[in-house]
Amino acid sequence: MQRDVSAHLDIGIAAPTTLEFQVAAARQPGLELNESLVFELDGRTIWPQEISGPHGSRIHKFDSGTGNLQVHYRATVLGTAHPEPVSDYDLALYLRPSRFAESDKLFGFAAAEFDSAAAPAELAAAVTAWARRRIRYIAGSSDPTDGAVETLLSGAGVCRDYTHLIVALLRALKVPARMVAVYAPGLFPMDFHAVAEAYVDGMWRAFDATGLAPRSSLVRIATGRDASDAAFMDNHGGEVFVNNIWVNAIIEGFLPFDNGVDPVSIV
Amino acid sequence: MQRDVSAHLDIGIAAPTTLEFQVAAARQPGLELNESLVFELDGRTIWPQEISGPHGSRIHKFDSGTGNLQVHYRATVLGTAHPEPVSDYDLALYLRPSRFAESDKLFGFAAAEFDSAAAPAELAAAVTAWARRRIRYIAGSSDPTDGAVETLLSGAGVCRDYTHLIVALLRALKVPARMVAVYAPGLFPMDFHAVAEAYVDGMWRAFDATGLAPRSSLVRIATGRDASDAAFMDNHGGEVFVNNIWVNAIIEGFLPFDNGVDPVSIV
Amino acid sequence: MQRDVSAHLDIGIAAPTTLEFQVAAARQPGLELNESLVFELDGRTIWPQEISGPHGSRIHKFDSGTGNLQVHYRATVLGTAHPEPVSDYDLALYLRPSRFAESDKLFGFAAAEFDSAAAPAELAAAVTAWARRRIRYIAGSSDPTDGAVETLLSGAGVCRDYTHLIVALLRALKVPARMVAVYAPGLFPMDFHAVAEAYVDGMWRAFDATGLAPRSSLVRIATGRDASDAAFMDNHGGEVFVNNIWVNAIIEGFLPFDNGVDPVSIV
Amino acid sequence: MQRDVSAHLDIGIAAPTTLEFQVAAARQPGLELNESLVFELDGRTIWPQEISGPHGSRIHKFDSGTGNLQVHYRATVLGTAHPEPVSDYDLALYLRPSRFAESDKLFGFAAAEFDSAAAPAELAAAVTAWARRRIRYIAGSSDPTDGAVETLLSGAGVCRDYTHLIVALLRALKVPARMVAVYAPGLFPMDFHAVAEAYVDGMWRAFDATGLAPRSSLVRIATGRDASDAAFMDNHGGEVFVNNIWVNAIIEGFLPFDNGVDPVSIV
Repeated sequence: MQRDVSAHLDIGIAAPTTLEFQVAAARQPGLELNESLVFELDGRTIWPQEISGPHGSRIHKFDSGTGNLQVHYRATVLGTAHPEPVSDYDLALYLRPSRFAESDKLFGFAAAEFDSAAAPAELAAAVTAWARRRIRYIAGSSDPTDGAVETLLSGAGVCRDYTHLIVALLRALKVPARMVAVYAPGLFPMDFHAVAEAYVDGMWRAFDATGLAPRSSLVRIATGRDASDAAFMDNHGGEVFVNNIWVNAIIEGFLPFDNGVDPVSIV
Repeated sequence: MQRDVSAHLDIGIAAPTTLEFQVAAARQPGLELNESLVFELDGRTIWPQEISGPHGSRIHKFDSGTGNLQVHYRATVLGTAHPEPVSDYDLALYLRPSRFAESDKLFGFAAAEFDSAAAPAELAAAVTAWARRRIRYIAGSSDPTDGAVETLLSGAGVCRDYTHLIVALLRALKVPARMVAVYAPGLFPMDFHAVAEAYVDGMWRAFDATGLAPRSSLVRIATGRDASDAAFMDNHGGEVFVNNIWVNAIIEGFLPFDNGVDPVSIV
Repeated sequence: MQRDVSAHLDIGIAAPTTLEFQVAAARQPGLELNESLVFELDGRTIWPQEISGPHGSRIHKFDSGTGNLQVHYRATVLGTAHPEPVSDYDLALYLRPSRFAESDKLFGFAAAEFDSAAAPAELAAAVTAWARRRIRYIAGSSDPTDGAVETLLSGAGVCRDYTHLIVALLRALKVPARMVAVYAPGLFPMDFHAVAEAYVDGMWRAFDATGLAPRSSLVRIATGRDASDAAFMDNHGGEVFVNNIWVNAIIEGFLPFDNGVDPVSIV
Repeated sequence: MQRDVSAHLDIGIAAPTTLEFQVAAARQPGLELNESLVFELDGRTIWPQEISGPHGSRIHKFDSGTGNLQVHYRATVLGTAHPEPVSDYDLALYLRPSRFAESDKLFGFAAAEFDSAAAPAELAAAVTAWARRRIRYIAGSSDPTDGAVETLLSGAGVCRDYTHLIVALLRALKVPARMVAVYAPGLFPMDFHAVAEAYVDGMWRAFDATGLAPRSSLVRIATGRDASDAAFMDNHGGEVFVNNIWVNAIIEGFLPFDNGVDPVSIV
C-alpha cells in the first residue's frame, strides 16, 4: 500500500512563543516513511526539536519569534503498520476519564442507553452507530474547550467531537478507548481527521461515526487520551493565528471500500 | 376535598442571618386554608414578614440570631383550587432557560430524542415516561447546584431532579414548563415533593416522573422556574444546618388513584 | 430630557417559527414614549401581540412563515422615569441564582475575593471595579450559553457577560441584582447594551463595568434575572439568522458625564 | 532515611468487578522497598497482576467476585529516590489540560491573577500561596467529578482539590505540572495525600498548598496528569463500597521541618 500525505499550514505569530506540532505520520514497524518537514518563519528555516511520544507519535517543538510561519509536511507512506503489542498499562490508561472524554460523568447515561453486558465489540459498534444517528456533522459547531458532554447535549460537532463522544461512552462502559489523529484518504472536504480506537477482541480497532473516510487507509499521526494529546498544534505563550490549512491524503490505486461495520485496524 | 398538611423543621443557626421560608400552601381562589405558622428561636416567637409571590405563593422572611429554630406549619386545606387564568407573560417566561432547567443546552439532545412535531400533550407524556425509565430515584445522589444536565448525565436523582429534567426538555421542545413544590398525600417516604407543570391543551397540567404520589391531591406551595424559586428555605448570610424535617400530608377518605397518564391539574 | 432611540433588524427565517422581540422602551411613569414598531415579512406587515412584562417591559410576539423579516423600531423618549416602588418580592427574586448568573456556584469565590461585611453600595462598587479590571472586552469571545462562571474563567466577554458576572457576584454577596437591557446614548460602537442593577441604599442603581456609556441617559428596555429575560429576540421553533442589526440612541444636547462611581439610577 | 508506610482497606464488593489499586510505593532508583501486599476476599488470598506504569508506579489489578475485600500493604522504604531524568515528552505531556486540571479553561483567569512573565519557580510559589489563602480545607466538600474549576469557584476542598487547582493554574501559565499521590509522614489526620509537582529550575519540585506534611519525607506512590492517574482504587464494573481506610506513614527519627517555601523534591 502506498499513501501520500501532506499538510501545509500558514500561521501568523503575533508574539514570541513556543510551538509544538504533531503533523508527521507516526513511526511504526512495517511502515516506510519518506518524508520532509520544513518550518519557515518569514522565509528563514527553523530547526525543531523532535520529541518521541507513545505509539510512534512525534512532536516537533521550537521557540518562535513573531512573523509568518509556513509549515510544509509531505510523506510517502509505504507498507502497512504492524499492530503495536498491546500493553497492559495502556488498557488501564485508556479506561480513565480525560479532559475531553469525561467518562466519569457519563456512567449513568451510558448504562441507561446501552447494554452494559454486551461484548466490547458489540458495544463499540452500538456506540458508533448511536453517535452517527444522534450527532449532526456541522463545521464550526463546537469550541476547543468542548468535550463529550457538550457534544452529547448539543447533538452537533465535527470529527473531534464524534470521537470524544465514542471514546467517553466506551470508557464508561468499561471498554478501553482512545483518540487517533489521522490523515484520511478519501475524506471530503479534505482536512485533518480523527477517529476512535477501542480495544475489542484483543486488538485496537478503529471506529468512525462520521463515516467520512475508509478506515483501512488511514495514516496514524498521534494517539492519545483525547484531543489534548492529538492536536496538530500546541501553542505555549504568544498569540497565534491559523490563517490557512491545506491537507492532502491519497492512496495509490482505488480507495478501499469500508462498510463502516466490519472490524478494521489502522495500519 | 379536605387535605391536612404540616411541616416541622428543626434548624441550627450558627451565625446571624436572614431566612426565607416557602412552606405555606399557596393562596388560591377556591381553597380555604385554616393554618398556623410559628417560628421559634430558642423558644422565643419570631414574627416574620409575609411576602406574596406569583401563583399564590408566600414567602415568610425574617432576620434571625444564632440558636435553634423551630418551624411549625399546619394547615387544613378545604375545597379545590380554581385554575389560575393563563397569562401570556407566563407562557413566555416558562419557555426561557433557568438556573436548574438549562433548556438552552438541551436543544440538540431533545430534538434527537423526541419528536419535535408532536403535540405538547404528547411531548409532555413522552418526556415524563422517558425520565421515569431513564432516571433512578436515589436519595442523596444529587447536589444543590445540580440541574437538568447533571441529572441527564448521571441518570440518578430525587423529585427535584426529575422535575428539572422534564421542565428543561419540555422547554427545549417549545412547551412552557415550570416547577411546583407541593405537599403530596400518599408520598412515601413522606417529605416535601416537587413536580413539573406543563402548558398543554390550554391548561397547566402536572407531570411527575417519580410516580410517587397521586397528582390530583397535591397541595401547591410555590411555583416557579425551578428550585431557585421553589425552595422551602433560602438562607442569606450565616451558616445554617437543617437538623431535621418532618412533613405530613393526608387526604380525608381514600387516596385518589393516578394512572400517571391521564391529564391532571393541581387543585 | 429627550432621547431618540431606534433599532432596525434584518432577519432571515428559514423555517416557520414563533418569535418574541423585546426592543421597545419600557413603559414607565414619568416617561412619554412617541414610538413606532413595524414588522414586515417579505414586505407584508405583521401585527404582533404585545405582552406586558414586569418593570414596564413589553414583548412583541407573532408566528412567522419563512422569508426576510424587517423590524423597525423608533421612539422619542421624553422626560425621566419615576423610580418603580421597590417590591419585597423583587428583593427576594433578584437574590436567587439564575441561568446565566449562577450565584450559587460563586459563594466561595465571592467570599474569598470581597469583604462580605461591607455595605451593599460598597460591594457593588467593588465588584464593578473588579470586573472592569479583570475582564477584557472582546467582541465574539462568548457564546449564548455562557454565564458568569465562564466569564470569570475566560476573563473576556461583552456587555452581557460583564453584567452577568456583576449580578452573580453581588447575589452571592447577598445584594439583590438584576440585568437591564438598554439603549445607550454615547455607546461606541453603537449596539444594544446591558448593565446591572443592584439594590443599594434603598434604591435600584445601575452598574456598568464596561464604562462604555453614561448611565444617566440609558433607556430601559427589559429588566430581569439575566439574559434569559432580557434578550432582544427569542426564537421558538424554526431556524433564524440575524443578518444585521442597526441600533441608534442619542440624547438631545450634551451627553451627560459619568465618572462611573457616583450612584446613578436608570431614568 | 527510613520511612515505614502502610495502608489497610476494607471494601465491600456487591457485584463482580475488576479492580485496580495504586497503593504500593513507586519503584525508583535509590530506594529500597521491603514490602508486602496482600489482597483477601472473604479470607481467600487473591493474586493480582502487577502492571508497571510511568515514574515507577505500579498498578495491582484483578477480577473479584462479591464479598468483603481486605487490602494490606506495608513497606519499609530505605534511602532516597534519585531524581528521574527529565523527559522532553513529559514536559509536553504535563502542559496539556487534563480531566481534573482543565488548564484550557483557566487561561484568562490565570493571566489576570498572576504575572505570566515571572519565572516558573516564582509562579509555582505564587500559585501555591494563593491556593493556600483562597481555598479552605473542608473534608467532604468536593465530589469525585470535581476538578480545578469547581475548586476555584467553591473555595473549598481537600488535598486532591488543592493539587488540581495548582496544577491547572500552572499549566495555564505554561509551567509543566502534575499530581503525585503520596504517603505523608506527619499528616494529620493521617490519610492518603496528594501534592503537585511542577517543573522549575530544571527539576520537578513538590508544592503543597495544604501545608499539612513536610515535603521532604513524602513517599511517592503514583504520578500523573491528575486524580484520574493517581487514584488509590479504580473500579471497573460492579458496585463497590469503601468501608474503611487506615493509612500510616512514619519516618525514623524526627519529622523534617518544612517552611513550605524552599524548593523541595520528592525523594
